[in-house]
Amino acid sequence: MWGIELQRKTGVTLSRQIYQILRDQMTEGRLQPDEVLPSTREMAQQLSVSRNTVYEAYEMLSAEGYIISRPGSQTRVAKGLCLGKPASVTGESDKPVQPAQNYLADFQTGRPDLRQFPMHLWLQLMHKAAEALPVNQWSYTGPAGLPVLREEIAAWLFRSRGLAIQPQDIFITAGATQALNLVADLLYSKSREIIVEDPCHSGMLHVLQSKGFGIRPVPVDNQGIQTGFLEGKGVCAIYVTPSHQFPLGGILPAGRRADLIRFAREYGLYLIEDDYDSEFRYNGSPVAPLRSMDAQRVIYIGTFSKILFPALRIGYVILPHHLHSRWRHLRTYTDVQNPPFEQAALAEFLLTRKLDRHVQKMRRLYGNRRQRLLQELERTFGNTWRVWGDASGLHLALEFPGRRFDREFALYCEKSGIRLTPGDFHSLRKGFHLDKLLLGYGHLDEEEISRGILLLYNAFSCFKPNHP
Amino acid sequence: MWGIELQRKTGVTLSRQIYQILRDQMTEGRLQPDEVLPSTREMAQQLSVSRNTVYEAYEMLSAEGYIISRPGSQTRVAKGLCLGKPASVTGESDKPVQPAQNYLADFQTGRPDLRQFPMHLWLQLMHKAAEALPVNQWSYTGPAGLPVLREEIAAWLFRSRGLAIQPQDIFITAGATQALNLVADLLYSKSREIIVEDPCHSGMLHVLQSKGFGIRPVPVDNQGIQTGFLEGKGVCAIYVTPSHQFPLGGILPAGRRADLIRFAREYGLYLIEDDYDSEFRYNGSPVAPLRSMDAQRVIYIGTFSKILFPALRIGYVILPHHLHSRWRHLRTYTDVQNPPFEQAALAEFLLTRKLDRHVQKMRRLYGNRRQRLLQELERTFGNTWRVWGDASGLHLALEFPGRRFDREFALYCEKSGIRLTPGDFHSLRKGFHLDKLLLGYGHLDEEEISRGILLLYNAFSCFKPNHP
Repeated sequence: MWGIELQRKTGVTLSRQIYQILRDQMTEGRLQPDEVLPSTREMAQQLSVSRNTVYEAYEMLSAEGYIISRPGSQTRVAKGLCLGKPASVTGESDKPVQPAQNYLADFQTGRPDLRQFPMHLWLQLMHKAAEALPVNQWSYTGPAGLPVLREEIAAWLFRSRGLAIQPQDIFITAGATQALNLVADLLYSKSREIIVEDPCHSGMLHVLQSKGFGIRPVPVDNQGIQTGFLEGKGVCAIYVTPSHQFPLGGILPAGRRADLIRFAREYGLYLIEDDYDSEFRYNGSPVAPLRSMDAQRVIYIGTFSKILFPALRIGYVILPHHLHSRWRHLRTYTDVQNPPFEQAALAEFLLTRKLDRHVQKMRRLYGNRRQRLLQELERTFGNTWRVWGDASGLHLALEFPGRRFDREFALYCEKSGIRLTPGDFHSLRKGFHLDKLLLGYGHLDEEEISRGILLLYNAFSCFKPNHP
Repeated sequence: MWGIELQRKTGVTLSRQIYQILRDQMTEGRLQPDEVLPSTREMAQQLSVSRNTVYEAYEMLSAEGYIISRPGSQTRVAKGLCLGKPASVTGESDKPVQPAQNYLADFQTGRPDLRQFPMHLWLQLMHKAAEALPVNQWSYTGPAGLPVLREEIAAWLFRSRGLAIQPQDIFITAGATQALNLVADLLYSKSREIIVEDPCHSGMLHVLQSKGFGIRPVPVDNQGIQTGFLEGKGVCAIYVTPSHQFPLGGILPAGRRADLIRFAREYGLYLIEDDYDSEFRYNGSPVAPLRSMDAQRVIYIGTFSKILFPALRIGYVILPHHLHSRWRHLRTYTDVQNPPFEQAALAEFLLTRKLDRHVQKMRRLYGNRRQRLLQELERTFGNTWRVWGDASGLHLALEFPGRRFDREFALYCEKSGIRLTPGDFHSLRKGFHLDKLLLGYGHLDEEEISRGILLLYNAFSCFKPNHP
């Protein structure tokens, strides 16, 4: 009757089912404008449901304007409801998502070893910290982040890098990517050109490009950005990784740091300092950030993705005072704020120095893995390679003079179950780092490293380029 | 000696203090290029510290290029380090953050009653769900959100609104603000004009404006957007709140819904449907979303900020298939993803139907509060007012014919300890809703409502406009 077939065990009430079927019939034109609907009593009998059920369905249809019912008149279908069938929308087709491959040797860069993270302890802390949150912190608490976390990060920066920062200069973000994204918005009105290191992390580069920035690459050598090549006209900022150049590994020497600061002052531009993993330096303490040389020109970006775990989604930015108010505004209309639970847990993790101990433990562990990687390289590849940059971070940049690691080689490795990044992958001007490879090792134990290098050696031996 | 004063109990190692002081002296020009530094032995004696401490400081300075030390030579200050004093950067000054005022009557809109939220239960769920997360979910898990949460939201939309959605069409966001922000990025390339309801939530409007969209307002009446005023040329989307117009409260009737769909198809544009609080409808079930009428033209935005609590920072967007791949890309380069803990907890909250029960409880509670508010209005203001829109949501839009609620009145109320929103506050073309007031009541208990209305009546009586 009326094309209505009710299903009893779907979790959807019968009245809603009736409502939906009738509504679809109206928008598809099977029920015509002005057509009379049966009374609730009649419909209830025909469908073997209670009259109340039909009444509810009619109520919904009436409240939403699908049917018109006036006292003393019959119930009729409203006008102007018919939609016909939709035309298909053309657009880019959705690419299927690549399933995660199981690599035999996975040298992906930038991955901490999550197996070593004290997850149970973290979850306990989070629970405890969340229980202690006052009820008003379950509502909106502002775009800057939890005050206690900002204080603890300031204290941590002082302990770990001797960087003296006021907590109110620190703004919590949902990770470093969001930090750069918002910094890009912050600076966009000034100009549309930005200087980046070449090579530069392709993901971060993409953030800047997607904001519409023109990109001016400046080459990098073993020590970091080559400041002699800087050209400042029309530029609003320089995005740099002075503590550990990504991906080539250099620590920027003091003279070039001073160059950057002088240059920024001369041209009235900002230095965006991305300090993504300098906690893991194996030959000494973390380097003092650029930020310690100029509090007005340097925007510092930090993250806990590498020190703790990526899914935490907590980073931060240290901003010059005159940018605070614009930042608050921007963050509010971007995604309002971080959730408070992770923030409270991290504050506790810092306060109790558990973070310091975890970093210490991981620095030792990663340092050993780096040693193992170097030993295996020497044992397997002899002296055909050299390391670029400083003993720091979670990956190694290797040069194999005379070799050529192009796309074809990378694909060959991929097929052989080896994930690695050719040195030229992150380059803007291609061709200058074809003889380099990037090997991430932080997440691999020593056994995995040895096996991986053996497989890599195999790939070196077996790979025959089509166009040599 | 050398202007070095060490402090023993700061938490900063002595070697780092020495390093910092020397470094500052070099960048400030007090130590000149090529100047010879004392030997580590000499310096250690003068400062009464171990030689190793000085050695560490020199190592840091050397590694970072501040000093040059060659075997058999003296240690000298590097060249090109002097920076002088920075010039001050001019820019907008940072406005002081307003301290939260304690209102005697707080009729802020859009606030759920957090006192009623089962926080303890939620935290237990979060703990349990987080413990069960496999280790790889502590790393990056992709921009779409946890699969289990997407499935549970699909099931919830079917239970609560009869909306049949594939889980893969649902993308988790950090709240509704981020959802609109990313949708704006998604559509930006198509055109720069967007139609909005007038009045329209000023925060959401701001998101669109800050993305550079030109805004075309279309007036709203008691039932929602007046589709007769639509003009489609050059427009890429229409942002609407058909389930409960914000702020005037109308539920868009079926005929106008059909108008919107036909209009979108004709001009090839998208409908952005913001369903921010339709769970709380007091005269029936939630209205069926626009999305159920067209899966290719409607982008649906949902949030849990009102149903659960704002600090959760979880919303979602339902996207037509042909926009999926661009969305993934955008979210990845915006802030990567949500943290997994809240997502896992919410999935569990949905799966165990705790959300359904919470919504049911709160709907009853808010419904009673709305009744109390209406009773108090009648008792106090007689019949000098009428309600706009449907019995739904967490606030009331009231019209007081003949009255004028301008900025002066709002300031007067603010000073009297009453927070409310004049009806014209969210208007794009000012002056059309001066006779209306918006009163949020969700977060107030019945006692607070009665007291608030009394205070409001007082304000009505005592307020004397300067320029009547």
